[in-house]
Amino acid sequence: MGRVTERRPVMRIRDGVVSSRPDTLVAEEPLEIRLNGKPLAITMRTPGDDFALAAGFLASEGVLRTAEDLATIAYCAGATHEGTNTYNIVDVRLAPHVPVPDITLERNVYTTSSCGLCGKASLDAVRTTAHWALEADHPRLTPQVLTALPDRLRGAQRVFDRTGGLHAAALFTPHGELLDLREDVGRHNAVDKLIGHALQQGHLPLRDSVLMVSGRASFELVQKAVMAGIPLLAAVSAPSSLAVDLATETGLTLVGFLRGTTMNIYSGAERLALEVPTGSG
Amino acid sequence: MGRVTERRPVMRIRDGVVSSRPDTLVAEEPLEIRLNGKPLAITMRTPGDDFALAAGFLASEGVLRTAEDLATIAYCAGATHEGTNTYNIVDVRLAPHVPVPDITLERNVYTTSSCGLCGKASLDAVRTTAHWALEADHPRLTPQVLTALPDRLRGAQRVFDRTGGLHAAALFTPHGELLDLREDVGRHNAVDKLIGHALQQGHLPLRDSVLMVSGRASFELVQKAVMAGIPLLAAVSAPSSLAVDLATETGLTLVGFLRGTTMNIYSGAERLALEVPTGSG
Repeated sequence: MGRVTERRPVMRIRDGVVSSRPDTLVAEEPLEIRLNGKPLAITMRTPGDDFALAAGFLASEGVLRTAEDLATIAYCAGATHEGTNTYNIVDVRLAPHVPVPDITLERNVYTTSSCGLCGKASLDAVRTTAHWALEADHPRLTPQVLTALPDRLRGAQRVFDRTGGLHAAALFTPHGELLDLREDVGRHNAVDKLIGHALQQGHLPLRDSVLMVSGRASFELVQKAVMAGIPLLAAVSAPSSLAVDLATETGLTLVGFLRGTTMNIYSGAERLALEVPTGSG
Repeated sequence: MGRVTERRPVMRIRDGVVSSRPDTLVAEEPLEIRLNGKPLAITMRTPGDDFALAAGFLASEGVLRTAEDLATIAYCAGATHEGTNTYNIVDVRLAPHVPVPDITLERNVYTTSSCGLCGKASLDAVRTTAHWALEADHPRLTPQVLTALPDRLRGAQRVFDRTGGLHAAALFTPHGELLDLREDVGRHNAVDKLIGHALQQGHLPLRDSVLMVSGRASFELVQKAVMAGIPLLAAVSAPSSLAVDLATETGLTLVGFLRGTTMNIYSGAERLALEVPTGSG
């Protein structure tokens, strides 16, 4: 299962000079997630942490709430390529008390909304399926804790330096201590792996955690944070409009452009101990 | 339909000093793509170019081959939110001669593969659904043309400088002239918009085009290039292992880490006029 990277030959051109060498690339393979034996979704992911990825995906969709909702996760033994298990199909069985959702589309939360598909419907769908309410004012942390996170994230990225091709997501304590880090060729997968692993360990809701991602903050990443009960999401790059709207509506603290000693706070500023009053700048 | 960006208030912290100001964010809204009236997929996208996005998505999946395969594309008039068309549901009607695919999963190409789900099956699926074979040795271009592309891409990105949140994809001629540029909050969407627009204009296959993307090169981006008949894909960042495998198998020229005067060539080096023989470096 150690297929996080693979080697391929590469021809390099630098200032017109051509050289050949082997290059280390991030591995990418399809993963099919089945729910009670029924195909649910396929994602292109970096192999490894597949059970956590499946659990996190289902937590984000509101199907799984805690470790008790999960009966078993296993690789599909029949999924063979020329007689070998490909380890690319995972079957999740729900505990008897968990209702099996009727999921037909990639993102079923939208199809269950009664009005026409729009950003507002997306927000409503997350709000109605979220199992945990975020506590206002908790946790409280300083901007200095946040500005230290990007360096810690990069420092902890074992694979990144070799391939340059991986998205990272990490959980930190409100004091800035690293709790867990996951990487994947897909940004959503890295967050699913992180949250799924926490779910399996019985750590949901993640009320005392800060989620940091190496890229930008989309609607879906805010959704995943909210569904896991995470009160703060920090991103190195920009958020989208709908990400800000969902964060504002659910009370999540959303921080973007976290670089050096600079950051943008788009919602939930009350969790940050700021020395200068709002709007004085 | 000019909802490419939206304004939201933001609190900025720089070196401990807090200030408040409005910020321009990239807009993100869900788009549901319907095929002959039946829901097929939902993607989070930046509004605009929605018909091109739907057409490009269907070209990438092998459903649409040319403009003649397309009967109509229209916003779903019944898709209302409080009486207003949300412009977030697009219905694509196929011309009578086009077979309606049986698409049940997000990425149906994998489910039609006979062996267990694996990278090899993914490659086979693209090869069997691809409508255009890439011509070996065509087009031929110099490394100097490629090294000029990143600056031209960034220069042409109107929105990027305002939001920092958009992926870009552009088509260039083999001489490095910009043909078209599309941006989106999702990297796949930017490429779908580009290819869909070309399909609508009757330009597929794009035999004389170079595709340049602002991020990394995943399997799905190589797939989209191959399905549109594009012979060269250049990316600013790293490719994945499966992206390299698909490019090698289909004869696509795949260039990564295109920065300054440096680039990595992972496959199809014969299209590049190199002054130094291979392997001499």
